[in-house]
Parts: sequence; C-alpha cells; structure tokens
Amino acid sequence: MAGVGMASEEHPERSEADAFAAACHHARQVAVLASVDALLGWDEQTMMPRDAADYRAEQAAALAAVAHRERTDPRQGDRLARLAAGRLAMAGTPDERATIRLLAKDFARQARLPPRLVAELARTRVEAQQAWAAARATSDWGMLEPWLRKMFDLKREQAACQEPDLDAYDALLDEYEPGGRWRAIAERFAGLRAGLVPLVQACATARRRPDDAVLRRSYPVEPQRRFVTQVAERIGFDFHRGRLDTTAHPFCSTMGPDDCRITTRWDERFLPTALFGVLHEAGHGLYEQGLRREWYGLPPGAAASLGIHESQSRLWENLVGRSRPFWEWCFPLARAAFPAALGDTSAAAVHEALLTVKPSFIRVEADEVTYNLHVMLRFDLERAVIHGDLPIGDLPAAWNDRFEQDFGMRPTCAAEGVLQDIHWSAGLIGYFPTYSLGNMYAAQLMAAAEEQVPGLEAGFAAGAFGDLLGWLRREVHAAGQLLESEPLVAQVTGRPVSAAALLESLRRRYGPVHGL
Amino acid sequence: MAGVGMASEEHPERSEADAFAAACHHARQVAVLASVDALLGWDEQTMMPRDAADYRAEQAAALAAVAHRERTDPRQGDRLARLAAGRLAMAGTPDERATIRLLAKDFARQARLPPRLVAELARTRVEAQQAWAAARATSDWGMLEPWLRKMFDLKREQAACQEPDLDAYDALLDEYEPGGRWRAIAERFAGLRAGLVPLVQACATARRRPDDAVLRRSYPVEPQRRFVTQVAERIGFDFHRGRLDTTAHPFCSTMGPDDCRITTRWDERFLPTALFGVLHEAGHGLYEQGLRREWYGLPPGAAASLGIHESQSRLWENLVGRSRPFWEWCFPLARAAFPAALGDTSAAAVHEALLTVKPSFIRVEADEVTYNLHVMLRFDLERAVIHGDLPIGDLPAAWNDRFEQDFGMRPTCAAEGVLQDIHWSAGLIGYFPTYSLGNMYAAQLMAAAEEQVPGLEAGFAAGAFGDLLGWLRREVHAAGQLLESEPLVAQVTGRPVSAAALLESLRRRYGPVHGL
Repeated sequence: MAGVGMASEEHPERSEADAFAAACHHARQVAVLASVDALLGWDEQTMMPRDAADYRAEQAAALAAVAHRERTDPRQGDRLARLAAGRLAMAGTPDERATIRLLAKDFARQARLPPRLVAELARTRVEAQQAWAAARATSDWGMLEPWLRKMFDLKREQAACQEPDLDAYDALLDEYEPGGRWRAIAERFAGLRAGLVPLVQACATARRRPDDAVLRRSYPVEPQRRFVTQVAERIGFDFHRGRLDTTAHPFCSTMGPDDCRITTRWDERFLPTALFGVLHEAGHGLYEQGLRREWYGLPPGAAASLGIHESQSRLWENLVGRSRPFWEWCFPLARAAFPAALGDTSAAAVHEALLTVKPSFIRVEADEVTYNLHVMLRFDLERAVIHGDLPIGDLPAAWNDRFEQDFGMRPTCAAEGVLQDIHWSAGLIGYFPTYSLGNMYAAQLMAAAEEQVPGLEAGFAAGAFGDLLGWLRREVHAAGQLLESEPLVAQVTGRPVSAAALLESLRRRYGPVHGL
Repeated sequence: MAGVGMASEEHPERSEADAFAAACHHARQVAVLASVDALLGWDEQTMMPRDAADYRAEQAAALAAVAHRERTDPRQGDRLARLAAGRLAMAGTPDERATIRLLAKDFARQARLPPRLVAELARTRVEAQQAWAAARATSDWGMLEPWLRKMFDLKREQAACQEPDLDAYDALLDEYEPGGRWRAIAERFAGLRAGLVPLVQACATARRRPDDAVLRRSYPVEPQRRFVTQVAERIGFDFHRGRLDTTAHPFCSTMGPDDCRITTRWDERFLPTALFGVLHEAGHGLYEQGLRREWYGLPPGAAASLGIHESQSRLWENLVGRSRPFWEWCFPLARAAFPAALGDTSAAAVHEALLTVKPSFIRVEADEVTYNLHVMLRFDLERAVIHGDLPIGDLPAAWNDRFEQDFGMRPTCAAEGVLQDIHWSAGLIGYFPTYSLGNMYAAQLMAAAEEQVPGLEAGFAAGAFGDLLGWLRREVHAAGQLLESEPLVAQVTGRPVSAAALLESLRRRYGPVHGL
C-alpha cells in the first residue's frame, strides 16, 4: 500500500490513486485521534490521580469534538463517493476494494446521523448510566425505567436514520457485527440453547461434580503477576508492543499498531480471576497485535467484528486455558509460583477444578457452560423491545420468567436480574449477541485448527502455542475486515456457522468430569 | 469568572462579556489539547511499550496539527483585537485585563510566524537533536556545527518575524521570560559572577571542606521511593492531584488543573540524586498545584515565567532541602529508611555532606555554588551568536576560554564542553538564563518569607512547611501571569531584583562549613 499517508490534503487529487491515498490518509488521521482518546481512557483507569476525573472528561470532549469534525469532513465524503463509483472499487486489489466500500459505508452511516441525535445520545448515555448505577445499588428498577425507555427510543431513531432500509435491530447490530442479521443469529442461538439447557441441568444434578476448593487457597498478588505475565508472554503477547496493568474492570485497549495494553484485577483467594482474565484480554491483544500494521486505522487492518474479537479472547481463555494439555505445561509453572497452595496437588486436579459448573444469577460470574444462556436471554429481550413486542415496563418480569425457564431459579431482586449490566443504559443495544457469537466462532475455529494443524494439543502440553497463533494470524487476523464474520468463519473452517462445534466442545470437556 | 467555558462559538457574541467568555473558552480549548499532548509525552517517557515510539510521534503530530488550527483560528484573532480595543481591556478586573492583554500578545506572536518557518523549525529541531546525540557520543563538534548554524539562523528569523521592533535575543527570551531584557539580566549576572568566582575559588581551596562519603553508601531503591514520597507529601505535594514515576531524565509535567506528574531517577549509591530531584520537581509541582484552577489554561492561572517556575523548584530543593532545620526534621526519617547507611551518623553530618562544592565540567552535575557559572557562560555565548558577535565555528574555543576563566580548568574535549547540553539543538535559545534568574528569585523570595513569616525555619525543624507554602501560594502562585517576573519579585519582596540575596544565602550556608 504505497501511497497511504503520503498524500497531502493540500494538493489536488488528479488521479484515482491520489484520491485513494488521500482517503486513506484522512481515515488514518481519524484513527490516530481515536487512539489518543484510547490513551486518555487507559490512563484514566490505570494511572490518573484521583482528583483529575472532571478535567479528563473535558479533555475527552475536546478531542471528540475535533475528531468528529475530521470524521465528518465533507471533502472525505465527496472523495469516497467518487471512489465508490470508480475503477478501483470494482477492479482494485481486495484490500483496496474493501477499503473503499467500508470507508464509504462508515462515512454514510455517520453522515446520516443528525447532530441533534448525536448530542442527545451522548447526553442520555451519561445520564442513563448514572441512573443505572444508582438503581443497581438500591435494586430499584423504577429509577432506571424512564431512562431505558428514552434510550431505546433514541436507538430506534438512530437505526431509522442510519439504515432506513434495514430492520431496526439489524441496523443497530451492524455497528458491532457488520452484516449480522438477527434472524440468522436467532436460528443459531436456538440450536445452542436447545443443547445447553439440558447440559447445564445434567451438570448441576450430576452425582460426580468438580470442586474448586484448590483454586480458593492463598495466591499472593506478586507471584500472580509474574505467573500470568509468563503465561501471556508464552502464548505470544508481545510486551514490547504492549503492557499489563491493574484495573477494577479488566479490558484490552489499543492505542496504536504497536501499543496494545491489557489489564486485570487480582484476587488473592481465587486464582482464576487474574489468570483467565489475562488469558481473555491477551487473546484480544493477540488479535490486535496480529492485524496488518501497515493498514492500521483502515478496514484491511481492523478487527472484523466484536464477535470475531470475542472469539479470539474466548479461544485462548477457554479452549486453550481450560484444556488438559495446557495444564500439563502450565501446572509446574503455577506450582513454582505458589508452592504453598499447589504443593500437594496435580495438573489433573487443577484442570478438573476449573471445569466447575454452577448456575448463578450474574452473567460476569458465570462459568463457560451457563454463560451463553445469560447472553441469549438478553438478545431476545432487547430485540423484543426494539421491535415493539415488549414494553419497557414488562422487562423485569420477562427477564425473571425467562431466567427461570433456562436456569430453574428465579432472581429475587432486580439487581440480580435486569439491573445487572451497564450495556443498555450505555446505549449498547445489539452488542450482547456478539458474546455468544464469539463463543461459537471460537469453537468452530479451534476445531478447524485442530484438523488443519497436526499436533496442536501436544504442542500445548509442551508450552508451544506458536502453531496455533500462526494459524490464527494467517487465517483470521490478516483478513482484517475483508470478509464479514460469518463468511470469514465459514471460509476458514469450511463449514457454515452453527452451534455444533461449541456444543461438541463443551460436551467433550465438561461431560467426563461430571460422569456424563 | 462566571461565563468562562460557558460561551459557545455557535452563538453570536452580542456583548463584550460574551466576546470575553468566547475568547476564554477558545483559549481554554487550546490548553486542553495541549494538556492531552502533555499526557502523550508523559506516557512516552514512563509507560509506553518500547516499539510504540514511531506511532507516538504520529499521534503527537496529528494532535499538534489540530491544536495549531485551533490556536490560529482567525475568529479568535478578531475577537481579541476587538477586546483589546474595548472597555474591559482598560477598566476590567486585573484578571480580565491580563487575560485580554496576554492572549492578544500570544495570538499575535503565533500569527506572525509564517507556516513555512514553523515547519522548518520543527523539522530542524528533530534533525539537529539527532545530530547532537551522535556528536556528543563521539565528542565530534563538526557533526553538530552545520545544524547549529542553521538553527541559530532560523531562530534569528523567528525573532524578526515575531517581534520586529525588539532586539533579536530579547524576542527569543520573551518566549520563556515574558518582558525579560538581556541588558538588565546581564547587569544582574555581572554582580552574581563577580561574587561567585571568588567564592568558588575559596571553597575549592579551603583547608576545611565537606566530604560526601556518607551520601555514597548503599541506598536501595524501594526505601528511597517511600522516603522521597513521604518528603514530597510533607512539603505539600498533593498525590490526589499528582503522581511520582521513574524516568531517565526527571521532569514535572502538568496535564490538567488537578493532574501534575513528577518523575525522578534512582541511584542506589548516591542518596541526593532522587531526593533532591524530587524536591526540585515537587517544587515545580507545588507551583502548578497552587495556580488558580478556575483560570486553568488562561493567563491568571498560568505560571508567570520559566524563571519564576525555576525559583519554586530551586527554593524547595536548595533553600529548604539543603538547610540545617530541614535536616533536623528529615534525618530521623532518612535513618529509619536506611538504618544500615545512616545508623552511625547525624543530621549535622548529612547536612554538611550536602554542602560539598566541587567544580566540574558538566552543568547538570554541578553543585549549588558553581551551577550559575555554567549558566551565565551559556547566556553570554548564545547571545553573542544571536547578535552576530561570535561565529558558530568559534563556539568551542570561546566556551573553553570562558570556562577556564571562571573555573580555573579547561575541558579536554567537546563532550565535556560545548556539546553537553541539548538546548541549542532543540531550538531553546534564550532559555538558559531562566535557570539563574530562578536561583536569584528563589533566594530573594526566601529572604522575604523569612522576614515576613515568623518562625519559618523553626517550623522546618518540626517538619512544618505549610507556612512557607501558604506564603508562596498567596504571594507568587495566585498571581499567575498578572505581573512579569521582575515586577512580581520586586512587589513581593519589596526590593528590586538583584544577585544580593543569592550571594548572601550561599555565603551564609557554604561559608562556615568551609571555614570561611
């Protein structure tokens, strides 16, 4: 991609190649400003002094204002419209075609949003989240209800503006899972739920059940930090292009092609918190570090979707990190770090303890098997609200009814149910399904990797993860946004996307330890 | 200052008050973007992963581009021109008058710089600094000479553009020391030099001389970190509005009214490195934290000058930190932190060790007494170059001759002489004198504080620094840029600025321990 970053907006764009270079340069400048905003956010969570919060909001707002002006620069719109009708959009390289198509799509989606709606969404997002925090703290649904009503109304309006020809839910979903359609997802999820409900029940009532007591011994923070850093390094996270810090809510944030920062929290009485948190965030980080850096900020160098992003984190967290071969390699390292806690036990015992299944009310505390039931519940409810099939006022009861159906128990208060997640008050509607799509993609990708790469699991047992990472880099990371999620997974795995691989993986790993 | 930050650029400015509010809002937005740039710089030095450097430069450039566009927005120029001719500029509050006068001055200075010169200066700054690093590493003056010639030429051009009616050196000086004039400074410096040269000689040849061996014992980093943090907190640095980190080159950087970050480096074999580094940077930080936060980003809430800034750092570093009462309080704390190193010694012995005077070639390693001779040498040479009285090619010899006059010894290579500082290659011409101005201001302010605040030194011995800080806040910090440096110091101390207080302070503290 010679030419990107070399065009100057001050020179006339005589040729189509000039216009393409200028469009790329502009989009990259927008991405650069967004990456500065990412640093503001990371610093706020990790380093910023306590009293600086108000001013940090002012910094973010000032940066958002200049970034918005850049992003909606009409010269970029003209350029993209010209390019979309030109030769490169038809006959360019796949990278060029995807760049033109997706930059034009994104620009149009932005441009169709009235500034009044943008401002109102931003304001409501702040106020609704404040209401949510207060409502959750007192388990008082009534405090949140009017804000959610307003937020869902605004999101319906957003959908109608941005994609007048699309179903409203699909229009919102498209932000997170480009090209995703709710009918197809609902079909996949029906298969997943049909398999999961009996599996959860079988695990919960099994005579033989894993016990996680060994994971609840004493695990001091400093050895944990060294241990998880070693693990992250070994799976391939590049600390010359990233770092690990401590936050209350773990995340992965990218602030440049060579600057991906992950965070975790530490629990001295429960080993999995930090270890699986770091495997999860490092999984996101490996994806970010595997994107084509010369296309940073442009569609060929960007993540395909939130679903694909989540597939990478869940693959390393669950399909690698909760596998038996992984623990054959990892256990000696863990025992060296925590001789007092792990001196009397074995790789097999720790691995089995990690497969504990226990239905609970709270999604973020859920185990791997029950997790997707939490997600699908939210997907069905938010879709019903957007489509006008469920009044906001009926959400709490609908939540509890559905929860009882799937889990066999009923939340006793709103904080245990409908109030637990920040997403809806933050305007993240159409976001939840990407969690379970990620789990489905992950299992299907892992099954394909096992077929295509000989000796993969034997490698894990020896602490060799490079073959898997190399395969993901080639097949998934390098693809950027050239394909949408489902076509990408279908192309890489040779099968249409379905819940089959995920169900198969769960049954294979969780069945035996529960005597099923 | 109701109204600041409340004006919107989209509404017409009907009244002068509206225009004033809009001008303040605009200036504050520019300051907010600059504070984001400060975060980029701080992060680069402290946290950024190794490989992210190239992209960080791209982020800084993108931000500089948008900040420059804001800073030179012609609407702000029109507004300030209107305000400067209006009622508020004559009859407003002192804060309002200073705001209009200084924003208009700064805008005009920026606007008079041709974009070509701005770009050329930026480029030359990068290239000359690279040449400097290579030249210093090999002590090869010839590598740097053409770059310095170019840089001095560009700076002369800058001076002529920005202040066509001023002496060229004064035009450059004004950037760092607003209102400073070289003739007045040269006069003060002549007095300082006349007193210092014999004092240095007397100390160097004294029969009785302090010995710093006790400071060169083993001082492990972790206890150092706790110790200097306690000291910084005790003198008043607010860690809820700031933090302390580690860097190769210590600095103080402000990224918001409640976010001032200082850094230090650690030497396990020399206690003063970190302790006095932190006292120095925390002194800068106390000034930043003492500025009126409601005027952040505007002249009433900004530091008066680099000289005043340096006066605050040097006051805490030298006039407090190297005083006997300070060590009466501090020594038990230090001994608790380093029982092995300090168990057999006393406050008096450590205090005396800190007063070691030893002429050396390198400015940044100089003691308090010789330091100003290094600075005045640079001031005289850079001024001679700007004025065309000294050809660039003659700089190394001129440096060595002057050094020999003042110190009685001659650098043996360029790295020990003319190549040691980054400033000239970075385009910082007119910057050096602010170091010694800061020392003079500091001594004069401290003498006034001792007169005006009863029991100041007795307070130090009890670890009570609040009276001094309160006095500085009231007299110096709260003044912002309402007065220029010399009028400010003269008003606060009741005396015109001179070298007298500094010479008196040095003689009083360094004389006795050298038996003078």
